[in-house]
Amino acid sequence: RNRVLVTGGAGFVGSHLCTYLVERGDHVICVDNFFTGSKENVAHLLGKTNFELIRHDVVEKLLLEVDQIFHLACPASPVHYKYNPIKTIKTSFIGTMNMLGLAKRTRARFLLTSTSEVYGDPLEHPQTESYWGNVNPIGERSCYDEGKRAAECLTFDYQREHDLEVRVVRIFNTYGPHMALDDGRVVSNFVAQALTGQPLTIYGDGQQTRSFQYVSDLVEGMVRVMDGPYTGPFNIGNPTEFTMLELAQVVKEVVNPNATIVYKENTADDPSRRKPDISKAKKMLGWEPKVALRDGLSRMVSDFAKRLDVEV
Amino acid sequence: RNRVLVTGGAGFVGSHLCTYLVERGDHVICVDNFFTGSKENVAHLLGKTNFELIRHDVVEKLLLEVDQIFHLACPASPVHYKYNPIKTIKTSFIGTMNMLGLAKRTRARFLLTSTSEVYGDPLEHPQTESYWGNVNPIGERSCYDEGKRAAECLTFDYQREHDLEVRVVRIFNTYGPHMALDDGRVVSNFVAQALTGQPLTIYGDGQQTRSFQYVSDLVEGMVRVMDGPYTGPFNIGNPTEFTMLELAQVVKEVVNPNATIVYKENTADDPSRRKPDISKAKKMLGWEPKVALRDGLSRMVSDFAKRLDVEV
Ligand SMILES: NC(=O)c1ccc[n+]([C@@H]2O[C@H](COP(=O)([O-])OP(=O)(O)OC[C@H]3O[C@@H](n4cnc5c(N)ncnc54)[C@H](O)[C@@H]3O)[C@@H](O)[C@H]2O)c1
Ligand SMILES: NC(=O)c1ccc[n+]([C@@H]2O[C@H](COP(=O)([O-])OP(=O)(O)OC[C@H]3O[C@@H](n4cnc5c(N)ncnc54)[C@H](O)[C@@H]3O)[C@@H](O)[C@H]2O)c1
Ligand SMILES: O=c1ccn([C@@H]2O[C@H](COP(=O)(O)OP(=O)(O)O)[C@@H](O)[C@H]2O)c(=O)[nH]1
Ligand SMILES: O=c1ccn([C@@H]2O[C@H](COP(=O)(O)OP(=O)(O)O)[C@@H](O)[C@H]2O)c(=O)[nH]1
Ligand SMILES: O=c1ccn([C@@H]2O[C@H](COP(=O)(O)OP(=O)(O)O)[C@@H](O)[C@H]2O)c(=O)[nH]1
Ligand SMILES: O=c1ccn([C@@H]2O[C@H](COP(=O)(O)OP(=O)(O)O)[C@@H](O)[C@H]2O)c(=O)[nH]1
Repeated sequence: RNRVLVTGGAGFVGSHLCTYLVERGDHVICVDNFFTGSKENVAHLLGKTNFELIRHDVVEKLLLEVDQIFHLACPASPVHYKYNPIKTIKTSFIGTMNMLGLAKRTRARFLLTSTSEVYGDPLEHPQTESYWGNVNPIGERSCYDEGKRAAECLTFDYQREHDLEVRVVRIFNTYGPHMALDDGRVVSNFVAQALTGQPLTIYGDGQQTRSFQYVSDLVEGMVRVMDGPYTGPFNIGNPTEFTMLELAQVVKEVVNPNATIVYKENTADDPSRRKPDISKAKKMLGWEPKVALRDGLSRMVSDFAKRLDVEV
Repeated sequence: RNRVLVTGGAGFVGSHLCTYLVERGDHVICVDNFFTGSKENVAHLLGKTNFELIRHDVVEKLLLEVDQIFHLACPASPVHYKYNPIKTIKTSFIGTMNMLGLAKRTRARFLLTSTSEVYGDPLEHPQTESYWGNVNPIGERSCYDEGKRAAECLTFDYQREHDLEVRVVRIFNTYGPHMALDDGRVVSNFVAQALTGQPLTIYGDGQQTRSFQYVSDLVEGMVRVMDGPYTGPFNIGNPTEFTMLELAQVVKEVVNPNATIVYKENTADDPSRRKPDISKAKKMLGWEPKVALRDGLSRMVSDFAKRLDVEV
């Protein structure tokens, strides 16, 4: 039986990954400090004999016996990671170091969930894995961006120095059920706003772009990378690009045609566009996303409506 | 009396800084693990009442009472920092975190010695402080480059979160007496080779450029930044640019006209050119370098000849 550690497993992505792994029969250990995640996200797994939940902060040492480590623990939304930047970069660097130390001791395979933010405000478009990025090292977003870059670096150094089996995925904007309601990311904001009759908040002029991936496509991609023979890094994202204004239109159509839009000031160093080149994952892993934005949004509406206690 | 901690104080730059500070009357505490530094570098200070030497690794916690911290501890030569990349990035990140923690507790002013390597293989030339860099996050040099970028990020986050007084200098290639003989950097290699009748080793085609600063100019710049009112980052370097081939010619002229040249394969991700734009330091601090390459080289020859036991 495959013993799998999922750090950050009570978060948005982690909870979907845990569900997938439990269903396929792995023995899953979910580790989380509940900073942005919650027990509710994994409530449906608590009764299973092949699922275990541990409250632990990855900045501290952790002793377990496992075969695979999916390392997700890290706040991911700008609102959350800017809340305590020192803690964010400590989580990214020291958390990754500890999980690599654990992997080294147990000879487990280790997968790091890195991010498209390692490309910063990219000068190359779409972004391929060989692009080195355009990242402000000392700005407000740097705790996250530089934290992840340092975590990637450390991961490759453990591979080179200790012959560890490592995997790196660079995740592009992902959405779906279980996103925290107070998360502040654009899709969860728009969906919650549309459901509760608040105006959709567009930051800046709404011309900046992102490419949105539904969470099941991401989970499928992560598992392929973990179980496959290649280190990566692999871009895992949906290459269909939208401006924030276009996204607002789609949310209106799918969730609430009467929703209005307000414009707010944008935040510092906001990347102006982002779109993954996924040829590498396509070619080497046979992976590509399947869920279109409209379909994915409909699937997340019922979860959000229930948690927001509104009728749809 | 000003109590000053100099981490990495037994290294090349650190030993010159300690000498300067002891001479001006500060109480200097030099902390070093002697990975690349040596007691010989500070031997002339050991008898002074205002100098103290502590063997300590900055990856471990350190409790001291001080007013200023010059944080230099980190291997700086590619040969040394690639020797154990995991240790290098731990030193950079955790070492800086510990010294920031110390600064926070004592309310000391903290100066980080960052590097021109944060610009990577720069696409902007010369480099200004606002340039975000072109750095490979997962290559062989990344432990140093990304380690320093993460250290800068952490430093600014301590300033923003805890109102700490911080200073950041980005040092460009520096040379002078006390460079380790086995250091592998280009100036120490060429000078040692010219003195011992070995051919000067040029890596690659010799067309890559660097701008070389004599160590006394750097010490002057660092002290100005520390004692001045501005956070930085400040580029501290000499803007006169040389190809490695030109450098070899100058070393021949100054040290040994009979020296020959051999070409060797270059290392991965070697930056193709580097030259600081120092307008910011000039304008805000009234600082600029004074020692030309020929003069600096002559000054380091006697130190190298003595340590290599050759006559000049
Ligand atoms: N969702 C995206 O669009 C996206 C994009 C790029 C990268 N990622 C990466 O994927 C991972 C998961 O992101 P998410 O969207 O699920 O975010 P999330 O905030 O929902 O999940 C992160 C989880 O990690 C936990 N955590 C945070 N710090 C911790 C610590 N110190 N110790 C233990 N647990 C800790 C949180 O409590 C939470 O459960 C993150 O590493 C993130 O950087 C996500
Ligand atoms: N000399 C340059 O051209 C240059 C250029 C850019 C940046 N810098 C920076 O300036 C600083 C000093 O560089 P240098 O040229 O004097 O190098 P150096 O190797 O001579 O000095 C570094 C010193 O730090 C000590 N050290 C290393 N790891 C340590 C640890 N974990 N704990 C305690 N001490 C440790 C070493 O023993 C050594 O004495 C470094 O931070 C370097 O990154 C130097
Ligand atoms: O089962 C383990 C093994 C190690 N570590 C942590 O992982 C880090 C890195 O471990 P490694 O063995 O690589 O480094 P070292 O202990 O030699 O510093 C250490 O700080 C440990 O705290 C852990 O949390 N669990
Ligand atoms: O309510 C919101 C939240 C975010 N954004 C914008 O949406 C984009 C994506 O932001 P998000 O926080 O979702 O993720 P990021 O890709 O910036 O990490 C950015 O340009 C934000 O400025 C927005 O217009 N309205
Ligand atoms: O005098 C001190 C105070 C702190 N630290 C170290 O600095 C780090 C960061 O300290 P801070 O107080 O910022 O963080 P915290 O202790 O809250 O994690 C800690 O891990 C300590 O080990 C230190 O070496 N000397
Ligand atoms: O014996 C040597 C050592 C270095 N170099 C080259 O000199 C430049 C500066 O290298 P160094 O290690 O001094 O510092 P860096 O600026 O790369 O950190 C690089 O292009 C090296 O490839 C060289 O030609 N011969």
